[in-house]
Amino acid sequence: MRHNFGAGPCILPQEVFKQASQAVLDFKDGLSILEISHRTTEFEAVIEEATRLVKELLNVPEGYSVLFLQGGASLQFAMVPMNLLPEGQSASYLDTGVWASKAIKEVATFGKSNIVASSKSENYTFVPKDFQIPEDSAYFHCTSNNTIYGTEMFAMPETNVPIVCDMSSDILSRQIDVSKFGLIYAGAQKNIGPAGVTVVVVKDDILGKSGRKIPSMLDYKVHIDAGSLYNTPPVFSIYVAMLNLRWLKSKGGVAEIEKENIAKAQALYTEIDRNHLFKGTCSVEDRSRMNICFVMNNPELEKPFLKFVEENGVEGLKGHRSVGGFRASIYNALPITSVHHLIDLMQTFAEKHPNQ
Amino acid sequence: MRHNFGAGPCILPQEVFKQASQAVLDFKDGLSILEISHRTTEFEAVIEEATRLVKELLNVPEGYSVLFLQGGASLQFAMVPMNLLPEGQSASYLDTGVWASKAIKEVATFGKSNIVASSKSENYTFVPKDFQIPEDSAYFHCTSNNTIYGTEMFAMPETNVPIVCDMSSDILSRQIDVSKFGLIYAGAQKNIGPAGVTVVVVKDDILGKSGRKIPSMLDYKVHIDAGSLYNTPPVFSIYVAMLNLRWLKSKGGVAEIEKENIAKAQALYTEIDRNHLFKGTCSVEDRSRMNICFVMNNPELEKPFLKFVEENGVEGLKGHRSVGGFRASIYNALPITSVHHLIDLMQTFAEKHPNQ
Repeated sequence: MRHNFGAGPCILPQEVFKQASQAVLDFKDGLSILEISHRTTEFEAVIEEATRLVKELLNVPEGYSVLFLQGGASLQFAMVPMNLLPEGQSASYLDTGVWASKAIKEVATFGKSNIVASSKSENYTFVPKDFQIPEDSAYFHCTSNNTIYGTEMFAMPETNVPIVCDMSSDILSRQIDVSKFGLIYAGAQKNIGPAGVTVVVVKDDILGKSGRKIPSMLDYKVHIDAGSLYNTPPVFSIYVAMLNLRWLKSKGGVAEIEKENIAKAQALYTEIDRNHLFKGTCSVEDRSRMNICFVMNNPELEKPFLKFVEENGVEGLKGHRSVGGFRASIYNALPITSVHHLIDLMQTFAEKHPNQ
Repeated sequence: MRHNFGAGPCILPQEVFKQASQAVLDFKDGLSILEISHRTTEFEAVIEEATRLVKELLNVPEGYSVLFLQGGASLQFAMVPMNLLPEGQSASYLDTGVWASKAIKEVATFGKSNIVASSKSENYTFVPKDFQIPEDSAYFHCTSNNTIYGTEMFAMPETNVPIVCDMSSDILSRQIDVSKFGLIYAGAQKNIGPAGVTVVVVKDDILGKSGRKIPSMLDYKVHIDAGSLYNTPPVFSIYVAMLNLRWLKSKGGVAEIEKENIAKAQALYTEIDRNHLFKGTCSVEDRSRMNICFVMNNPELEKPFLKFVEENGVEGLKGHRSVGGFRASIYNALPITSVHHLIDLMQTFAEKHPNQ
């Protein structure tokens, strides 16, 4: 039994792997999902169901479109200013980590960015909360969950400026009010599906105002008009996303998975705080429920602990080099039994090292 | 037994489907290929092997880079002028079909295009050959195989201008001299692998000359420097491409598959020309070896013929609406036995309709 705590591409439900594996052999009438045209009624049904499930699970209101695109969040870093930032205007950004910084960097090709606040000087261990968003910003951009540093934004600012949010690592993990956002994007490879597809939820009426010529493949309106079928989409990634969204619905949807995610995160943070060997790296009120970062009070024990857990079926626990220590990514599909297994290992290891 | 003549995403070898299906369940140590990080040594080995196989199979010379990107050929339509066309300069294009036209359309955002020749007025039934490429063109762009119309360019013009070629539907189907090209791109979903990844082969020294600010994800140099791992790549599509490239190598490489492709195409064209019910739609010297377009002398028989072949295990033979009739896409992975099966059905149908 493997316990995959990897930060992404990450664990998906075992039944999704089984269904996806079967469809690679025989999706319909003996044909593989890899050899069917995206123009078949069978695949149109897949993308239609995937789109409908995103709308249903996120409770997307009227006036918003759901898209399945390529290029990951990294391409969104450029598409957002390309589509939403008119020449001469400025966009506001909250700097909460590496991904936010990369998003800010991409604005330069199209216009000016205004960093409303940053926690960079504290190695991004908290999410800044006291900041002003200038009323004349074309949009306000933030990253709801910071995969590398293990912080999460549980509240959005009150503003009349359209909020654009990179939700790559916490979309579908907790309930959100989509009507508060102008645009949400997320690389699929955490809670949506496998790598290779990006979900965008965009309020239609914020588009078409940049005054800029936009290449077709980078224009949200082109993809909206084509129902995400402007060109050949990443067929398999969308199919597996649909399977995973079905699984989430069958579990009771986002409200139910949020309860589980809270329980998983609380169990692990409780152990980190209780166990004399470990400590968390982030400000307590900003602790992510998806990526739990922690270190050891005695850094010399970190290698032995990592070896110990890896010998006991734990994958992907090594922390990102920017933080060190450990990162337990506990996305939707990671069962609570895996969290309990890790806690057991932490306790066993602590018993072996009573005085450190 | 199904015979998949679909234009793409298309048939891949059955052994590739089997290996891919298995890897979705267990790629390594019980983990699915869908849940491993792209930063693992295991996936780095996959992308390294895929890159090496492209270089080996296409005999890519020194001074060229091979990339695995996202967005399909459609995103390349924009990335090519963005990276290669300096402000104020012009790029030359050969207009041989819908995809060439779409590529031309995307130049407008970045500069001027010069159409050196077009077969549009003849519904793209041939490939123009007498044209001049102005010496001051930033590059010359062409489409080597026209999936919709069933024509193929078997010779490239002699020019000092860098040749940029969309080889989406005939890459790896025949030997080419890469040193004649500045840049080759191809959506994977014909002869490379499943949808969701795009292969680019680019001569390094043609880059960095546009004088334009380029978003990171759209900058070939960024991807070259990162070894196609600038951001999370489409892991599964690259993995399956690697399996398919291995299969091609095991078959004897491009020289061997080219012989098979010639044999398959000749068999089918011979039947089209011989059988009193059918006729080809393209100029004979430009007939594609990948997409064989044909119609019936009596259009009223087309629906009954399509029904007849579909009842006999043939998939995807319906022609594109721009041409009508039938299109047999006979990519690398389609066995010659499927071609013989189709020929048998054409002959059986002709026996039933001796006078039409």
